[in-house]
Amino acid sequence: MIDVRRHNANFCGEHFVAHCEEQVRRTIHQFRMIAPAERVLVAVSGGKDSLALWDLLARLGYDVDGVYLRLGIGEYSDESGDYARRFAAGRGLKLVEIDLRDEYGFDVPTGAKAAKRVPCSACGLSKRHLFNRAALDGGYDVVATGHNLDDEAAVLFGNVLRWNVDYLARQAPVLPERAGFPRKVKPLVRLAEREMAAYCVVRGIDYQVEECPMAAGNRHLGYKEALNTIEAQSPGSKAAFYFEFLDKAAHRFNAGFGDEQDALLSCASCGAPTPVEICAFCKLVERATTTR
Amino acid sequence: MIDVRRHNANFCGEHFVAHCEEQVRRTIHQFRMIAPAERVLVAVSGGKDSLALWDLLARLGYDVDGVYLRLGIGEYSDESGDYARRFAAGRGLKLVEIDLRDEYGFDVPTGAKAAKRVPCSACGLSKRHLFNRAALDGGYDVVATGHNLDDEAAVLFGNVLRWNVDYLARQAPVLPERAGFPRKVKPLVRLAEREMAAYCVVRGIDYQVEECPMAAGNRHLGYKEALNTIEAQSPGSKAAFYFEFLDKAAHRFNAGFGDEQDALLSCASCGAPTPVEICAFCKLVERATTTR
Repeated sequence: MIDVRRHNANFCGEHFVAHCEEQVRRTIHQFRMIAPAERVLVAVSGGKDSLALWDLLARLGYDVDGVYLRLGIGEYSDESGDYARRFAAGRGLKLVEIDLRDEYGFDVPTGAKAAKRVPCSACGLSKRHLFNRAALDGGYDVVATGHNLDDEAAVLFGNVLRWNVDYLARQAPVLPERAGFPRKVKPLVRLAEREMAAYCVVRGIDYQVEECPMAAGNRHLGYKEALNTIEAQSPGSKAAFYFEFLDKAAHRFNAGFGDEQDALLSCASCGAPTPVEICAFCKLVERATTTR
Repeated sequence: MIDVRRHNANFCGEHFVAHCEEQVRRTIHQFRMIAPAERVLVAVSGGKDSLALWDLLARLGYDVDGVYLRLGIGEYSDESGDYARRFAAGRGLKLVEIDLRDEYGFDVPTGAKAAKRVPCSACGLSKRHLFNRAALDGGYDVVATGHNLDDEAAVLFGNVLRWNVDYLARQAPVLPERAGFPRKVKPLVRLAEREMAAYCVVRGIDYQVEECPMAAGNRHLGYKEALNTIEAQSPGSKAAFYFEFLDKAAHRFNAGFGDEQDALLSCASCGAPTPVEICAFCKLVERATTTR
C-alpha cells in the first residue's frame, strides 16, 4: 500500500504504477512535451528518477533511448553506470555512453578543482552540453530529464529566496527547441521523490540509492529539507508552490527573456551555440586539462 | 555582547542600541515612512517588537503615542495590557486603550467562534479596522506596527508558497494613505526577531514573552521555522529574500493593484471605506454578538 498524502489516496502496487503513468501522460500532454512520432533521449544517472522515467516513457509507447555520462566520481560513478547498463540490458533498451575522461580528458572531481569551479557547477555544465550534443548527433527531437516535483520545487525555492529573476524566467517543465538546442522536457514534475522511489520498488528497478558524494551538504538539499517541513505541516504545499508559480507568476518574469538568443554565435571550438567566442564547456575542458 | 551573523558583527549594549536606531532611521528614510512633524500612532501588543518600536521612535524624536487593543484572550491579554501600560507610565508616554468587549460586545475567542472565523483572522481584521479608526479619530498621520524582518519574511514566504498574487502586490513596508486610511509603516523590517528581544533586554523593557495561545501551531510559525533552517545554513538569506523581493520582484505583482480603490463606498454602519455596503468589521461585530 502506497499512500500519497497530497492526493489523499492509497494505492496497491498495480494502481500505483497506473497512477504514475497517468501523471506522466497528463504532464506530457498539458505541456506538449513529446509528439507521438518523436525520438526521445533520456538523460540517465542510474538513480531512481531517471530509470523510472525511462521505464515510464517506454511503457507509454515512446521511442526512447538513454544516455549515460561517466563523470568519474569514484565508486559512486562506477556503481551508477552499472545500474544504468543493467536496466537497459534487462529490457533490451539502447544506452548511449559518454566517458568524460576518455573523450574530454578530465573527470568531475579533478577537473572541477583544476578549473576552480564547484563540482556541481562543472558537472551540470558538462551534462547540459553533452546531452544536447548527444541528442543532436543522434537525431533525437527531445531530451527528457528525471527532475521530479521535489527537485523542481527546491530549485524554485532557491531562485525565489534570492529572487534570481533570470532563472525564474526559465523555470518551466519544457524548454522549446531552438537553433542548436533540442527541446528539453521534465515529465516527472507531477511526481514526488518518494513516489519515484516507490515506483522503482514496485517495478523491480534496482537503482543507485546513494546521493552523489560531491553534492553532500549543498544548498539544494537544505531547500528540500525546508520544503519537507512545510509539506509535513500542509500536504500539497510543494505541488501548489510549483504549479501555482507556473500558472500565476512565471509569465511575470518572462519579459525580456529570449533577447539573448538573437546574439548567439557558434563556438569556435565545438560549434555549439554560445553568446561568446568559446562556449563555457570548451573553456571548462581547456582549464580542466591544462592547469594540472 | 550581541552578535548579528548576517552583518558579521558583534556589539556591546550601547552600540547595539545605536545599531538598532540606525537601522530604523535608514528604513524610515529609505521608504519615506514618516515626515518630521507628523504624528505617529504605534500599535502596541505588549510584546517585544511593538514596545521596542515605540521606544525607538521616541528616542529618534518622533511625536509618538501608543494604542492598545484589549482582545479578551484570557490571562494572556491581561498580562499583555499590563506590560503596555507599565511601559507607557514609566516613560510618560500616552497610551490609547480600546476594549473590544466593552465597546463592541465581543472578545476574540468567543466572537471568532460565533462568527465562524479562525481567531487569527477575526483578530487581524479587528486590529486593522480599529487602529485605522483610532488614527483617524485622534488626528494621527501614520500607524506604525512592530513587524520585524522575521515576520515580513514569513508572510512573504506564505504568500509565495501559494503565489497569492494579490497579497504579493501589497507586501510593502509602507502602505500610502488614501481616503479613509492613514499611512501604515513597518519601521522594524531591517531588524530580526532576536535583535528585538536583545534590544528589550539591553534597554530594560519588560514585555510579554509568551506567544498568543490562539496562534500556537499556525502556519505562520511553520514558515518562520523553515526560514530559520535556511538562515542557519546561510546567514543573510532572510534579509536577501525580503529585500530582493522589494527590489526585483514586487513591481511585477503590482499591475492592476489600486483599481479596487476607485470602487470604495462608505460602510452604511460605521462609515469606514469598504468595497461592499457593510464593512467586514461591522459584519464580524454583528455575527459575533447576535449568534450566541
